[in-house]
Amino acid sequence: MATLKDVAKETGLTVSTVSRVLNNRGYISEETRKNVYAAMKKLNYHPNEVARSLSKQTTNTIGVIVPHIRHPYFAELISNLENEAYHHKYKIILMNSQEKNEKELEYLEMCTSNRVSGVILCSGNVAVEEFSGLNVPLITIERYLENGTATVECDNLQGGRLAAKHLIEQGCKNLIHLSGVHETAMPADSRAAGFRETCIAKGIHYKEIATSAFQYNTLEYHDFIENLLLENPKTDGIFASSDLIAAQIIQVCYKMGISIPDQLKIVGFDDVNIASLTTPRISTIHQPIKEMAKMSIELLIHASEGALVASRTTLPVTLVKRETT
Amino acid sequence: MATLKDVAKETGLTVSTVSRVLNNRGYISEETRKNVYAAMKKLNYHPNEVARSLSKQTTNTIGVIVPHIRHPYFAELISNLENEAYHHKYKIILMNSQEKNEKELEYLEMCTSNRVSGVILCSGNVAVEEFSGLNVPLITIERYLENGTATVECDNLQGGRLAAKHLIEQGCKNLIHLSGVHETAMPADSRAAGFRETCIAKGIHYKEIATSAFQYNTLEYHDFIENLLLENPKTDGIFASSDLIAAQIIQVCYKMGISIPDQLKIVGFDDVNIASLTTPRISTIHQPIKEMAKMSIELLIHASEGALVASRTTLPVTLVKRETT
Repeated sequence: MATLKDVAKETGLTVSTVSRVLNNRGYISEETRKNVYAAMKKLNYHPNEVARSLSKQTTNTIGVIVPHIRHPYFAELISNLENEAYHHKYKIILMNSQEKNEKELEYLEMCTSNRVSGVILCSGNVAVEEFSGLNVPLITIERYLENGTATVECDNLQGGRLAAKHLIEQGCKNLIHLSGVHETAMPADSRAAGFRETCIAKGIHYKEIATSAFQYNTLEYHDFIENLLLENPKTDGIFASSDLIAAQIIQVCYKMGISIPDQLKIVGFDDVNIASLTTPRISTIHQPIKEMAKMSIELLIHASEGALVASRTTLPVTLVKRETT
Repeated sequence: MATLKDVAKETGLTVSTVSRVLNNRGYISEETRKNVYAAMKKLNYHPNEVARSLSKQTTNTIGVIVPHIRHPYFAELISNLENEAYHHKYKIILMNSQEKNEKELEYLEMCTSNRVSGVILCSGNVAVEEFSGLNVPLITIERYLENGTATVECDNLQGGRLAAKHLIEQGCKNLIHLSGVHETAMPADSRAAGFRETCIAKGIHYKEIATSAFQYNTLEYHDFIENLLLENPKTDGIFASSDLIAAQIIQVCYKMGISIPDQLKIVGFDDVNIASLTTPRISTIHQPIKEMAKMSIELLIHASEGALVASRTTLPVTLVKRETT
C-alpha cells in the first residue's frame, strides 16, 4: 500500500507539506492541493484513519446501542442517527443488545476500548455504576440513566393525554391502555400517567394492562390481545404503547369479527412506517424521531467538545388521525 | 486514564507480563491473571483497541453499506449481520447510502481509511472500477459486482416460479408481476424471469410492470397501484417484488372495495415482519435472511484470512401461505 512518503516523492513536495494538505493546515496553494490529490489517486493512497485516531485520541465514531434492530421504531431511529452522524462526519458502530445485561456491558467495554467519541444508549438494563468507567459523553434516548450526560425523550405524558382525549372525543366509554414493560422504569411510563389522568378528569371507565418483557423481546402479542378482548367485551377503545401492538390488535379484531373503527377504536404510539402500512391505517401519537436523533447527535458532539449541555430534553408529540378512530 | 504501566506497578509485575496476560500469550498462572484483571478494574484501565489495531493492521470491523435502514428488509438484514458479526467478535460500522453514488463512494473511502476487515455491500450504484482501491474482501448481498469477492443471494428464479405456480393453483387467470427497479441489473430480476416462464408454461395471461427507483427510495406506491388496478380491472392475482409493496396493494384494495383474497390474490416477497403484521397477513416468498447474513459474515472472515471462497452462493426460498391467497 502506498505511503505518505510515496505521495511526497511523486509530487516533489516534502512529507510535511503533503501532511498539511491532508490535515487542511496552514496556507496551501490550489495547485499544490490539486497535485497532492492527483498523486494520491494515482498511487491509490488512503490516509490511515486508525493512526490518525491514535494521535488525535478520538475516532469520530459513535457507539449506538439498541435493544432491537428489527423493531420498526429502532430501525427508524438508527436510520436517522446514521444520517445525522454522517452530516457531522461521524461513523456509527451499531450494537444490538437484545436487552441482555451482559451484552450491554460487553458493548460498553467495546466502546471504551475502541475510544469512541461518545455512546448513544437506547437500551436500558445496565446498572448505573457500570458507566463510571466511560470517559466519553453518554446520551440516552427514551431511557433514564442517573449518571448519563443527557437524556432525549418525547413528551410521553402529553402523548398519553392526547390519546385518551381523542378516544373519548370519538365517543369511547370503556378504555384500555396497553402499557409498556413494567420491570424497568422508563420515560414511556408517563404515557400511562397522562392517559389515566385524562380518563379520571373526564369520568371515563378505563383499565391499564401491562405487557411483559418477553412480549417486547419477541414482538408477539396476538394471544394476549385475544384473551384481553374476550375478558373485556365492552371495550370500545384501546391506546397501545406502540404501533406494532396496534397492528396486532387490528389482526385479532379481524379474526374475531370486531369492526374497526365502528366497534373498537385504536390509537398507537410512535408513528413508524408500520402505522401507515396496515389496513386500516393506524391513528397514532407521532414521536419526532428525526428531531430526537438530530438532538442526540448534537448533544453528543457538543459534550465531547467540553460544552455544558442540557441534561434532559423533551420534544413535543402530536396526534395523527388515520383510520382506526 | 490509567496506562499499562500503572497496572504493572499496581500488581508488582513487569509491563511485558501484563501485556502477555492481555494478549493471552505464553504461560500465565491463574493467580497472576486474576491479579492483573483485579488491578485493571481497580484502576479503570481499558486496553486501547485503536493502538492494537494499528499494530495488528486490522480492526475487527466490518463496513456494512445499505441503501435504506428503514426498509423492513434491510432492518432485518442488518439485525442478522450484527448478530452474526458479534458471535465472531467483529463490530459493524453501519452506512446508509440512500442509493446515492457519491455517498457510496465516500463510504468506501471511509472503509479504506479506517482499515475495516471487509465490506458488505447491499447497495448497488457504484461503478466497478471504484472498488479497485479496496484491499479487503467485498461481499455483496443480492447485488452483482464484477470484481467483488463473493455474492450471496436467494434463489430469485425459484421464488418467481413458486409465486406464479401458487397464484395459478389458487385459480387466478389474469396475473400481474410488479417487478423491481429497472435502471440497474440485479439478482432480483430473476424473480420476473421465473414468474414469466411459469405463466407461459401454464398458458396464463400475465403482465409485467416495472416500478421506479423513485418509488423504491420513497417506499411509496399507492397511486401507482390504484392506477394499475383501474387500468387492469380483470386482474385477479398480483406477485409483488416486496412485502412492502404487497402491504400497499392491500390498502388500495380496501379503499377500492376489492376483497382479498376473494377478488384478488397477492403474493409478496421477503417475508419480513410487515408480512405478518398486515390484515390480512401476506402470503409471501420467504428469503432466508438469517442464513444469508451468516453466510456473508463467514465468507468475509474466511476471505480476510486468505482462504479461497465461493464467488457466488445461492440459498433456497420457500412459499409461506398466509391470508392473501
